Order: sequence, then C-alpha cells, then structure tokens
Amino acid sequence: MTETWERFSELARELDDLSSAIKLLHWDQEVMMPRKGGPSRARALASLQAIAHKRLTDPELGDLLEGLSVDDSLALDQAASVRIMKRDYDKATKVPESLVRELAELEATSYQVWTQAKPANDFSMLHPYLSKMIDLKKQQADAIGWEKERYDALLDEFEPEMKTSEVESMFSELGEALIPLVDKIIDGAGECPEFVSREFDPQIQESFCRWLVRSLGYDMEAGRLDTSPHPFTMQVAPGDVRQTTRADAHGIMMSIYAAIHETGHALYEQNLPEAWAGMPVYQVPSLGLHESQSRLWENQIGRSRGFSNFIFRELRNRFPEQLSDVDEEIYYRGAIHPQRSLIRVTADEVTYNLHVGLRFELEVALFRDELDVQDLPGAWNEKMEHWLGIVPPSDTEGVLQDMHWSIGALGYFPTYSLGTMYGAAFYEKAKKDIPSLEDGLSDGRVEPLAEWLGEHVYSHAYLYPGPELGERILGEPLSPGPFIDYLRTKFGDAYNLSW
Amino acid sequence: MTETWERFSELARELDDLSSAIKLLHWDQEVMMPRKGGPSRARALASLQAIAHKRLTDPELGDLLEGLSVDDSLALDQAASVRIMKRDYDKATKVPESLVRELAELEATSYQVWTQAKPANDFSMLHPYLSKMIDLKKQQADAIGWEKERYDALLDEFEPEMKTSEVESMFSELGEALIPLVDKIIDGAGECPEFVSREFDPQIQESFCRWLVRSLGYDMEAGRLDTSPHPFTMQVAPGDVRQTTRADAHGIMMSIYAAIHETGHALYEQNLPEAWAGMPVYQVPSLGLHESQSRLWENQIGRSRGFSNFIFRELRNRFPEQLSDVDEEIYYRGAIHPQRSLIRVTADEVTYNLHVGLRFELEVALFRDELDVQDLPGAWNEKMEHWLGIVPPSDTEGVLQDMHWSIGALGYFPTYSLGTMYGAAFYEKAKKDIPSLEDGLSDGRVEPLAEWLGEHVYSHAYLYPGPELGERILGEPLSPGPFIDYLRTKFGDAYNLSW
Repeated sequence: MTETWERFSELARELDDLSSAIKLLHWDQEVMMPRKGGPSRARALASLQAIAHKRLTDPELGDLLEGLSVDDSLALDQAASVRIMKRDYDKATKVPESLVRELAELEATSYQVWTQAKPANDFSMLHPYLSKMIDLKKQQADAIGWEKERYDALLDEFEPEMKTSEVESMFSELGEALIPLVDKIIDGAGECPEFVSREFDPQIQESFCRWLVRSLGYDMEAGRLDTSPHPFTMQVAPGDVRQTTRADAHGIMMSIYAAIHETGHALYEQNLPEAWAGMPVYQVPSLGLHESQSRLWENQIGRSRGFSNFIFRELRNRFPEQLSDVDEEIYYRGAIHPQRSLIRVTADEVTYNLHVGLRFELEVALFRDELDVQDLPGAWNEKMEHWLGIVPPSDTEGVLQDMHWSIGALGYFPTYSLGTMYGAAFYEKAKKDIPSLEDGLSDGRVEPLAEWLGEHVYSHAYLYPGPELGERILGEPLSPGPFIDYLRTKFGDAYNLSW
Repeated sequence: MTETWERFSELARELDDLSSAIKLLHWDQEVMMPRKGGPSRARALASLQAIAHKRLTDPELGDLLEGLSVDDSLALDQAASVRIMKRDYDKATKVPESLVRELAELEATSYQVWTQAKPANDFSMLHPYLSKMIDLKKQQADAIGWEKERYDALLDEFEPEMKTSEVESMFSELGEALIPLVDKIIDGAGECPEFVSREFDPQIQESFCRWLVRSLGYDMEAGRLDTSPHPFTMQVAPGDVRQTTRADAHGIMMSIYAAIHETGHALYEQNLPEAWAGMPVYQVPSLGLHESQSRLWENQIGRSRGFSNFIFRELRNRFPEQLSDVDEEIYYRGAIHPQRSLIRVTADEVTYNLHVGLRFELEVALFRDELDVQDLPGAWNEKMEHWLGIVPPSDTEGVLQDMHWSIGALGYFPTYSLGTMYGAAFYEKAKKDIPSLEDGLSDGRVEPLAEWLGEHVYSHAYLYPGPELGERILGEPLSPGPFIDYLRTKFGDAYNLSW
C-alpha cells in the first residue's frame, strides 16, 4: 500500500503546486499586475486551470483514490487527505465539462451585466441572466447529487457536510432572538461619535495597520500586507499567507477592522500544521470555520473594551490632532456603534446577520421553486422590512447590492453567519477554559487566545469536516446561543441595558 | 494544413502560458515573496517546470513540428515560430533527463559552494564542482550536437546561430583596438568628481528613477518599477514587462544608470509586435540583441552629453543640497568617468568589455581542453594583467567574483560584449538615418530614436536568428568598429584627446 500512497501523495502535491501558482496569479492580478497585463493573465489562468482540471480528473488518480478509500492502515491525516481529494475528484468528474464551460461563460457575462444593472437600478437587465444562473446551478446540483434537497449540494461547495435544514433552524433561532435585541440595542446606542468620519491620512493608517497586524501575531516573514480595493487574505503557499487592506481618507474604522478581520483569516492559515503542508488535509475545512476566525478577532477581540483601549492608545500617538478630543470611551463607542442600514458589507456586528439571513431565505426559496427570479426585488424589500425594519429606496441599495449571485456564488452567504456563530461559540469556550483570557487585552496581550486557537482549532486543519470539527471543539453542536449571549452582555454593558 | 497549424498554435500558447506563470513565480520570489515562502516556491517552480518540460517534449508536438517544418505555405512569422519551437523541442529531447537532473543538482550545490568560496578567497573549495560542471557541460554540448567546436553548442544557448570563431575574431579586433585606447582615455580622465559618492536619500532616488523611466518611454500601465537587490527586467507576459532598480545611499550613479539600462531591456519587450503575442516568434532573438538595447540606452543615450544635461537638471531639483556645487560639466564627467578596476559589474563602458573578453578566452580554452580548471586562478590573473594592466590581490576579487560559472552559465559572458557592439552599431546606423537624432536629447526628446528602434529592431521580434537580424538592420555583419569609433569620439571630445 505504501507505493499507492506515495504515488497519490506525489499527484496531490503536484496539484497543490499548480493551485499555488494559480493563487499567485490571482493575488498578483489584484495587487500588483499592470492594467495592460489583463488579457494575458486571463489566458494564463485559463490554461493553468485547464491543466489542473485535467490532472484532478485523471483516471489514475481515481484508481488510487478507490484503493486508498478502503485502506484502513492509513493514519488519520492520510485518510483525511484521501477523503478530501475523493470529494474533489467526484465533483470534478460528475459535472459534465459542457456545463462547467457554460457556467464559466455565464458567470463572466452575468457579472458584467450586474456591474451595469446596479448603477442603473434596473433589475430587469439582470433578470434573464440570473434565471439562467439558477437553472444551470440546479443542473450542477443534480449532477453532483443531493439527498434531502437541492440547496444542500450548493451549500456543500462552501460548507462541506452542512445541511440546509440545520442552517435553516439556526437562522430561525437567530432571527427570533436577534430582532427584538436589535431594537433595544440601537435605541440604547444613540448617535455615532463624530470622530469616526474625520480625515485620516491613508499612509499613516496603513503603517498603523502594519503595527496592528504584527501586534496580533501575524508573521510578516511568512506574509505581506499590501493594499487593494477589496481587502482579502490568500494563502499562496505554506509559509506565504498574504493579506491586503484598504484605507479610506474619510474615516478610520474601516482600515482598522478590515485589518483585524483579515488577520483572523491569516492566523488560521499561518498556523496550520506544517507537517501536512502540500497535502489536502492542510487546509481550513470550510468558509464558515474560516470566517469564525476573522469574526472572532474582529469583534470579540478587536471590538472588546480591553483591546480597543490598546488600539486607541497607539492610534492617538499616530493621529494626535484628529483624536485630541477623543477618549477611550468615545473610541469604544465609535468602534461598536450599531445602526439599521441597507448595505451588508458596511453593517455592524449586531445587524450583520440579519442581512445574511435574508439572503439565505431567498436563495433557499429559489431552489425550492417557491420563488421566481422576477419576484426577487419585491421579496427582498419585504424581508428587509421584516428583518431590519427598513425598506431600500432603490434596487441599487437592495437586491442589486451584492455581486455574489451574478458570479454564481449561491450557497455562499450563509457561511458568513456560520462564521459569526462559530466565532462566538469558540470564544465562549476559550473563556471557560482560560478564565483570565481577557485580562491582558488592554495591553495587547493576545497570546493566551492564540495558543488556545492553535491547540483547539488550527492544529486539526481538515482532519474532520466542519460540523464534526465544530462539535469536537465545542463539545456540542453549533448553536446561535453564544452569539446572542455575547451581544446581550457586550451591548448591555456598553449602553446600560437590562434584558 | 490549417488544422495542424491550429493545433500547433494551441500547444505553443499553452506552453507560453506555463512559461508566463513560471516567470511570475520567479519575479515574485525576487521582489515580493516573504522569506518563509521559499521552500514552497522552490517546489512549485520544480513542478511547473516539469509540467512544461513534459509538454515541450510531447511526441505530438514533435509530429506537428515535423509536418510544419516542410510546409512552405506558412507566413514568415509562422515559419519562424515553427523554427524556434523546433529548436527548443530538439534540444529538450536530445539531452537525456538524467543529465538534466544531474546538471540542475550540480548547479544548486555548486552555487552554494561558490557563496562560501568567494568570501573565503578559496578557489580550491570550488575547484571539484567546477571541474564536474565543465565535464557535464561537455556532455550536454555533445548531446545537443555541434559542428566546428564544442563551445559553439554552449554559445548557441544564449546567442542562437552565433559561432565561437566569429566571436573570437571580434574580441581579438576589439582587444587590439581597445587596450591602447583605454590607456589614453584613463590618462585623460583624471580624478573622478567627488559628488558621485555623496549621500543621496534612496527614496528620492527611487522616485527620480520613476520619473526617468517614464521620460524614456517606459509604459507604466504595461509594467512596474520595484526594488530588488539585483536590478532586472522580466517580461511576465505580453502587456506586463516589469523592471526593478536598486538605490544605494552612498552614491547616485548606480540607480540612475541601472534604471536606464533596465529600461532599454524593457522597451524592447514592451514594443514587440502585439499580433504575435503568445507565439514563439514573440521574443527577442538573443541575449546579445537584448543587451544591445540596455547598453545603447544606458551609454549612447544616458551617458551622452545632451541627455546627461537633461538628467542633471531634474536631479538638481530633487537633490538641491547635494548638488549645489555641481554643474552640467561636472555631472557629465561623473557619469562617464572611466577607470581600471577589478570588478566587472561596476566597470565603466570603456573597460567593461576587457573584463568580458578575458572570461570568454578562459571559457573557450576550458572547452578546447587547453586549460585545466585548477589553473584558472593563475590564468585569470595573467589575463587581467594583459587586458587591464592590473592584478587582483585575491581570488575573491579575481576568478571568484562572478557567480556565472558556478550556476553553469557558460557561453553567457560574450553576449554582454555582443550587446555593446550591436548597441554602438545600431546607434551609428540610426544617426546616419536621422541626422538630427541627437538634437533634442538635452530636452529629453528620445522619440526619434524610439521610433527608429521600433521600426528597425523591435518590429522583427524573432523573425530571424540574431546574426541574420543584425545584418539586416546594419546592412553588414556586426563588427567592433562602430563601438571603437564611438569611444574615440566621445572621450576624445570629453578629455580633449587626439587620436
């Protein structure tokens, strides 16, 4: 069996190397590439992806996976790599190439149409493309296969082994608890401190972010911090996990919390077990788990009273003029300020998951044939009124705001909220395990948490599928309880609310 | 035949895409990659190179090339692409894989040994590796095949179709004319102006270089200018030609002339005919021709009296304090100052080719079995005395100074001097074609030259092998005459010398 494993391992590493090259081409495209390099880059990416697809669907790999799947002499991490690769192989071989191509073309066209439909506030432009997208996505789901319902196959792309019914019951519980909470918290919050929208030199913001991500334990020798229009994190390869940030001159909060958010993602990738580098097990099991780390660091740490004091002291050193009349309390209120808003990407931690729940419900309804694409704008607005108590004045600020559906990312949105819930649950567990966890936060001492996450989360990499890993870490299945408790405690304390 | 061509063209483009990814991995490694990404990057590069090698040596490609090589219905550029690819295919299939691997391993080890032998001033450390290198390179040359002598096969790697005997007679003519010239020029030059080694803020130098490369016509939308320890230019892909520079705080000349030099390379790559992008004909035919452009821009333009006035005016705006007591004449003398020196990379344009001639003679002697590796240090010093009139006090500053031999780059050095000679000859031709060529240089007007080069050099890409292209452009075979004439005129004027 050793020989089979060796050969499998060789093919897996080669696929990983190809994927690493593809990721670098993408990173470079977003961050470094000159404009006129665009057409050549698109061609190079297409060629590399075709080569990778051919290797992934090679019958030799299929045979190796067949044999290794029933080999019980494999170590836990080896068995996991086989299971993960088999998943990828099965998906890649089950979906017909013609459908893959059709989807790729539609995604490109539909995205282009979206970029015009959104500013034009014209959903009817996007409608035919979105209808076609839902149709092709149904075909894709059917090709891959599903048991209880079609949407399971879509969700499984981003959150392996998670089922629609589980997510549905979590969102229902979340919504029930959240809607009344939001009312009370927003009433208690009052006006947002005005300093947050003063002018802050973007270059100083960037160097501040550099200090900040280092303070959080991000290893600059195994990564980079650059700027890009949309902040993101990418593991180019083991030992090379890059993040980007963006600084807006008319405000200070975005760059700070985007940097903490991305650092949460990056710490996960930088601390996967080195011994497994290059193999399928060396990865984060799901987008929800990935997001658990960005949310936890951004909100539970970055927007804690203790750590926000730590941030504020350094920030005032760098912006003495802009912050001369701001103190720790005002800064904290600026950092956590909640409000009802129309746009998901700029929503605060209290209301954010309402935006996501709405999208999840609409997606599920589309795939259960309970909603037609042409009725999306109306359904969107109704749900906005129900979940957030406000109605968008236009589709630009409503159903057209996100690009996700136009690029075929259906089943993706719920992972944002799964991340929120995982993050809060992990943090609650860590505080139980280490009662002094928050003691050093106002001095920037995050090592105890980093160690806890290293041991309980990062060290497993993809040994288990997401839901199983979550339950192993928490000792119980994921639920919205810890997140709701966290909001009650935090905002109760901040605004003197009693529940 | 159309179908054969289509398939060939598809395979060629795919190879080009792979090569583009490999180049980006290299560029990123030199300029962006965090330190800890090194091991993964080495693995990714090895995998991609193996994939590319496999595709290049695919018998399907061999069959297509066989057919297309005798197809006289192909257009000129198509026939050139077939010829170039066939060259690569033949070389790749003729050299046994075991030898390729052995060479790759020896190159890596031998380079490591060189990094220790050089500071230790200990040639005996490198000796066994270099002997082995010469041995393997002989095997490689024999596998590829040669007619008159083995060194032809080595030279052909970098300067296709150029023969050792031609280069030998050019160096002999060059040496004969150059040695007495050097004596007289260096006597006339006197002391180097002291300002060149003052302190200049590297950041201001970098922004000056940005201005400078733009002034020379480098398209920033189709490239980037970054910093790296060794300045270089890389065509990542059509529309994406990147260069790097390096600024040393203790001097101003290096960053300026390295930037002009690299821009010369970059302009060639940025102005190849777009219609051929992705095909083998879309490339510079040889290293010598590539170097012709860097040398021409660096020396004939950058170190001309006119253009150096243009440089100086802007430089003084940016460094008013450091240059308060410097005028145009002093700046020019600083820019062209020649001296006898031990180190090739920092040598001036008058003495540079003597350093190269020495290396070429030693390489040829090694491959003609007229010199043994153990006698290299002594032979080096003798030739230094003959060519440059000075003897290195140590092997560190002598035979161990360059990394080239340790990494197996044998046959590479002469391309530097071929570049010098081509550059001078092209420039002489351009001046004949456009008598007013130099009129606007002191205002930075380089467009007439850029247009001439576009029409006479860049537009051909690799339609013809180097020697044929050179002769087409010049109307006669390459000779050292124009370079010698250029030195006589320039330094005669500068130092009031009569010949």
